[in-house]
Amino acid sequence: MHACGLIVEYNPLHNGHVYHIQQAQKLTGCDAMIAIMSGNFTQRGEPAILDKFSRTQAALAAGIDLVVELPFLYAVQHADLFAAGAVSILQALQVDQLVFGSEEGSIEPFQQALAVQEEHQAAHAHELKMQLELGLSFPEANRKAYEAIGLESSLDLTSPNNILGFAYLKAVGKLGASVHVDTIKRVQAGYHEQSISGPIASATSIRSAWQDKKKQEVKKAVPDVTLASLETENLHSWEAYFPLLRYLILTRSAEMLRNIQGMEEGLEYRFKKYIAQSTSFQQFLSLIKTKRYTWTRLQRVCVHLLCNTQKPTVGPFLQGAPYTPYIRVLGMTKKGQAFLASRKKQLEVPLYTQLKDGMHPIADLELQASDAYYSILAPKTAADARRQEISPPIFT
Amino acid sequence: MHACGLIVEYNPLHNGHVYHIQQAQKLTGCDAMIAIMSGNFTQRGEPAILDKFSRTQAALAAGIDLVVELPFLYAVQHADLFAAGAVSILQALQVDQLVFGSEEGSIEPFQQALAVQEEHQAAHAHELKMQLELGLSFPEANRKAYEAIGLESSLDLTSPNNILGFAYLKAVGKLGASVHVDTIKRVQAGYHEQSISGPIASATSIRSAWQDKKKQEVKKAVPDVTLASLETENLHSWEAYFPLLRYLILTRSAEMLRNIQGMEEGLEYRFKKYIAQSTSFQQFLSLIKTKRYTWTRLQRVCVHLLCNTQKPTVGPFLQGAPYTPYIRVLGMTKKGQAFLASRKKQLEVPLYTQLKDGMHPIADLELQASDAYYSILAPKTAADARRQEISPPIFT
Repeated sequence: MHACGLIVEYNPLHNGHVYHIQQAQKLTGCDAMIAIMSGNFTQRGEPAILDKFSRTQAALAAGIDLVVELPFLYAVQHADLFAAGAVSILQALQVDQLVFGSEEGSIEPFQQALAVQEEHQAAHAHELKMQLELGLSFPEANRKAYEAIGLESSLDLTSPNNILGFAYLKAVGKLGASVHVDTIKRVQAGYHEQSISGPIASATSIRSAWQDKKKQEVKKAVPDVTLASLETENLHSWEAYFPLLRYLILTRSAEMLRNIQGMEEGLEYRFKKYIAQSTSFQQFLSLIKTKRYTWTRLQRVCVHLLCNTQKPTVGPFLQGAPYTPYIRVLGMTKKGQAFLASRKKQLEVPLYTQLKDGMHPIADLELQASDAYYSILAPKTAADARRQEISPPIFT
Repeated sequence: MHACGLIVEYNPLHNGHVYHIQQAQKLTGCDAMIAIMSGNFTQRGEPAILDKFSRTQAALAAGIDLVVELPFLYAVQHADLFAAGAVSILQALQVDQLVFGSEEGSIEPFQQALAVQEEHQAAHAHELKMQLELGLSFPEANRKAYEAIGLESSLDLTSPNNILGFAYLKAVGKLGASVHVDTIKRVQAGYHEQSISGPIASATSIRSAWQDKKKQEVKKAVPDVTLASLETENLHSWEAYFPLLRYLILTRSAEMLRNIQGMEEGLEYRFKKYIAQSTSFQQFLSLIKTKRYTWTRLQRVCVHLLCNTQKPTVGPFLQGAPYTPYIRVLGMTKKGQAFLASRKKQLEVPLYTQLKDGMHPIADLELQASDAYYSILAPKTAADARRQEISPPIFT
């Protein structure tokens, strides 16, 4: 059974995603479409607007056959770790192809860029270190280091989906994965575009339109299943978590904050210094932001603080391949089930169709992150959501 | 300047408290009335219905001249530590008299009971240990041990205000405080009485009536200043904190819970076992309650968890006298100020009229507890409340 993998967040699933699923299927001619999806928190360090189960439901309705969770630990990380986590799942599942969307749209420039990067690895590393020492943020320093080795003549690495795509190729190389990689050009809307002008819009603009109660605009850009979830489910945004974040920073010592994943270089003192006067998440981030820390990186640290991601617990799982210690199924169709059956015997990591406490430290962290995610709900709703977390996958 | 001290919670201040202030003044003829008051959390392990500043305002309006905070660490403790903390403040301030309200109403039975207890200290300790080993709660075991040494023929120790009063006498003895102790009979309402029948009602019944929106009943039992606060201030009750408590228990490891003050004998596992299914504070406490743990003791552990009271931080301050490492003024009248001036030179502990971060570990814990208390408010309101915490005292 041939399978095509997509690495996704679906925050929320919109028409552009549906188009990508269809095009990837057409391009590869695969029997089964597999999505490796972030759970309740996203790569950019935000609570997903809809929980993982609503988004799984939408994915299955849109043509995905199997939704596997990208563990929280790898989902809320910089591009390289995010990619390594996702690609290692594709590898474990022996998925044949990976198709990603990019601004570039054809795979050759990515391959050329990879060749350049591999050839000039030492020079890249040297330049990166220098730029970081000058106080630049990691993405900015990395971009300059790529520029220095001439990579930008092959590939534009200022576009976010090109960056992610390049990270996938690097991960495939590093992990020695046998998956064949291709790309599809993203249509119309830019990643960060703020308004909805047609049937294809960015997830960012859809979330923002929904928060501004522009339902008619959102309706143009998402399939019915997403619209239905947006209308009935509880919505999650950083501002809703801000009282909790504020509480944590005020009531935990600097020593406790320092144990949190991503809390480096005295950032804990910056958090403590600016929290008392902050009355919104936006304001807090503006206050702690410096040239060295990107907004995204700071958001990710806030997610790990909220979810209590402890360095000693997760450290061993961030050191190197294999990154993903298990496969957790969030949902599947009959075809997805058949695919799993076809791969089950050769799986080298455990397959979890139902989580419970104490299965694995990374699975426990997943439950912990979900408990944090559901904590803004009324206790009864939160208890129901927790029950779904430990129930069997969605089956359609 | 002669001063009379009262040890209070004023949760909220009602007509019975006003009567007690007046009677104590009449009885002692003192120049200044000093209240040692719990802050934002009470001895029984509950968030106070109104914050410390509203209650200070009410106390000053009702005839108190100086309100000193009983530090959070001593306020949310069993009767003996609560008493030790409060009496050590009276001692430091060289307050001449202490007058407490009791069901008993005259001081001789307390003195007789104290004599019995001192005479049979070893027998009491032996019996207490035995009863605890049988699995009784501390108060129940203690009551039986007192019974065994014949103390109940002097004093009825099933009444909560008699228990507290007896704790004050023991603390005065233990600390060698020179304060003269007397008692006034509480009028009418019992401590735990649930409904309001006249102008004197218990604080418990007033809180419960207010939560049931029975404003007319409450109006009968409290002075105008309390009613005004109840009408304009944010109200605090355990249920409002339950989502936060639930979040903490779900997202912290058993090891982290074990570091919390009062979390003993594997209680952390009981917390973790029952939290997921609990959808209210009442339900959670009913589930974790056993014969060994009183409701009050469990509530106190929950307060310390919420406020992140770490055993290693507070341990050294619970070992013995002097219990109170500083005097923190919450509010005063001109007369209160004159009293302070009269004692200032002989004070053996620092006098804080304005807290700031890093003054003292116990003061830092006070701020931390207040941050936890204000965390259920909108971020702007919480930031304002925090500003009041680090402002000079109320002066009327």
